[in-house]
Amino acid sequence: MSLSKRASQLMNHPSAIVAGIIKCNNDPYDAQTNPEGFLNFGTAENTLMEDLLSKKLSSQIEIKSEHIQYSGMDVPALRETFSQFAMNHLNIEALKPENIVVQCGVSAICEALSFTLFDEGDAIMIATPYYNGFEHDFTKRFKCEFVKVDLSPTNNFQHSIEAFEQAYNQYPEPEKIKAVLICHPHNPTGEILSQEFMFSLLDFIQNKKLELISDEIYALSTHCKERHQSLYQLARERKLPAHLLYGMAKDFAIAGFKVGFFYSEDNELVEAMSSLCYFHPVASLTQLAVADLLSDEQFLHHYIELNQERLNKTKRDLIHRNDHLNFLPAEAGLFIVLDLSQWCESFEDEERYHQFILDELKINILKGRDLGLSKPGYFRVCFARPEDQIHTFSQRMQKLKRL
Amino acid sequence: MSLSKRASQLMNHPSAIVAGIIKCNNDPYDAQTNPEGFLNFGTAENTLMEDLLSKKLSSQIEIKSEHIQYSGMDVPALRETFSQFAMNHLNIEALKPENIVVQCGVSAICEALSFTLFDEGDAIMIATPYYNGFEHDFTKRFKCEFVKVDLSPTNNFQHSIEAFEQAYNQYPEPEKIKAVLICHPHNPTGEILSQEFMFSLLDFIQNKKLELISDEIYALSTHCKERHQSLYQLARERKLPAHLLYGMAKDFAIAGFKVGFFYSEDNELVEAMSSLCYFHPVASLTQLAVADLLSDEQFLHHYIELNQERLNKTKRDLIHRNDHLNFLPAEAGLFIVLDLSQWCESFEDEERYHQFILDELKINILKGRDLGLSKPGYFRVCFARPEDQIHTFSQRMQKLKRL
Repeated sequence: MSLSKRASQLMNHPSAIVAGIIKCNNDPYDAQTNPEGFLNFGTAENTLMEDLLSKKLSSQIEIKSEHIQYSGMDVPALRETFSQFAMNHLNIEALKPENIVVQCGVSAICEALSFTLFDEGDAIMIATPYYNGFEHDFTKRFKCEFVKVDLSPTNNFQHSIEAFEQAYNQYPEPEKIKAVLICHPHNPTGEILSQEFMFSLLDFIQNKKLELISDEIYALSTHCKERHQSLYQLARERKLPAHLLYGMAKDFAIAGFKVGFFYSEDNELVEAMSSLCYFHPVASLTQLAVADLLSDEQFLHHYIELNQERLNKTKRDLIHRNDHLNFLPAEAGLFIVLDLSQWCESFEDEERYHQFILDELKINILKGRDLGLSKPGYFRVCFARPEDQIHTFSQRMQKLKRL
Repeated sequence: MSLSKRASQLMNHPSAIVAGIIKCNNDPYDAQTNPEGFLNFGTAENTLMEDLLSKKLSSQIEIKSEHIQYSGMDVPALRETFSQFAMNHLNIEALKPENIVVQCGVSAICEALSFTLFDEGDAIMIATPYYNGFEHDFTKRFKCEFVKVDLSPTNNFQHSIEAFEQAYNQYPEPEKIKAVLICHPHNPTGEILSQEFMFSLLDFIQNKKLELISDEIYALSTHCKERHQSLYQLARERKLPAHLLYGMAKDFAIAGFKVGFFYSEDNELVEAMSSLCYFHPVASLTQLAVADLLSDEQFLHHYIELNQERLNKTKRDLIHRNDHLNFLPAEAGLFIVLDLSQWCESFEDEERYHQFILDELKINILKGRDLGLSKPGYFRVCFARPEDQIHTFSQRMQKLKRL
């Protein structure tokens, strides 16, 4: 028997990003053992905090009998801890623990949300450049569509309400648009949204009767000590239908732990999302480990500050070592956008640079076309890598000239 | 915005089983603190081994940096360990580690398999009485259908090939039947399939060009020391298209850890199932804990033997204390079928007994209609509970008379 039609369709459209990752996995750079191997600057992964995290997470967890049974599928302590954590660190007031849904990663949550909230053919507005994985999570399995909002390179792709209005007005079936998906701080530009933009976006959402999906997974990965302003919180204060996404893969760099949080005050939606937990659960053991991590205020204080310092230092180091290249300013996140637009007149040009960087320089980065961009020449560089890798990256990039 | 059509549909058909579980959760029996509370004999949960498991699982796990990154999503050691475990304990020869797929529970695996293998309208043969959760896992989200194979109460619902042939021949569109789903040892009857039946089933599958999905999650929960004979292994020896399901929730009673295994030699299917791991992953921490458990041969030897002893003792105790009631013989599993068919002429009768047992005796068990049965009067009793609960169950059941 062959695969189902839906599975065949899914398998026949693999992400363009996968090829680069496979090259990296098959022949990974290592300063000592494989200095000529591939550098992976394509995955949004923070390796700067492994020292603190490995130690913290190796602490012993006591497994009681309730944790091993079906009742263990839900560890209330984790939801209570997350509510407290969101208040203390994400600047979000009092989440109701019973409305917090924990699933095995934010991708799982996005997929469940795609199933739960959208019918086939419904549309979601999303700004480009965007995190490419959202296509997989939201559109591929359950067939809702993205309305791309093209941000403009002339102002470094900063979010603007005019771009949202234009995309809305140009969409042939605006009645199909149901929601706006925002990642804040933004992946891939690292923009921290201005308050002005956030307020005008909320007006827009209100006027058009849309819902907000606010992904704040990079809230604490800022390169400054500015306190995160939650778009979700602003929407909630205006009583707009809004839903929060957060996860442990970015600010806490434990992608391998696969823990994502969903919050909404729409009880019916929360109930539906919870019921899908049957397919997307997180092991009690992992929930206990994450609750332990998020409830340790002393650790958090030290960790968050040090992470921001290291991100900032690494970003500055990268820019400094690559002063023949243009980077867009980045205030947050694990990435920075490399601007080769002066050398790229077409996506064919972009593809040539991408291939050169991958095959000749042996560096995996993402190209703008995979970030949904309509203008060629921009690349996402994930820089949260060890010093020796930044060094090697910079040495190799010296060879990058006009092709 | 309201829920999507598919989510509304899913939410409007909650499992009939949920009501009983909610009553148990809201007012649970406790010998000391709540002796009048509800007993949950409805969930296939083994509480007899919590002493060994809590201790074993509380041991410290060293988290290295590779475990916290995206690479941590796959812990090769777990797949290698499972292959060895299957050989040593499930009587299955040499599984290729690269064809083992780990997802967050067997429900997640069934759902992914439903998505991957079946188109809408395709059908799967399944014997009744069956594990009711399969409906949720296989049919509800992706709309493939069950062809029910009615086993006969006159021989204690033992599997017979005639029943499969009859169901196949009576199905109006046999070309839509794509697979046979077998749970062996059987849930809910606890039958260990005879070799004769297994061979004739494989002939049937071969003749009709079907695939086999073999769920062997109760392989080690036998009430005797007989070594498990794997239906999957027999199918593989005949080179039939066959797929194995196994999980940690039953034989190892760690449902809260949400770890399921899928194995197939169909590489295309394995690739598709692996790609769905993006939504259904297991945290590295949990994978490491389970690898630790499954690789400890000394622990396994002691655990498996003691579990079988305790299951056998508890079952005998239950039957002995309830000698005014009829139970069907059970050779394996965490359950036994209570036969009240002499008092039930209709499903209305069955419902009356079910309500009486739930509301008056405060015991949650499953009724045959929820197990897919076409004849009323049979109930699944999950007996793997502590001694005081068996005692209380038996005291309360003394009040069960012809209504």
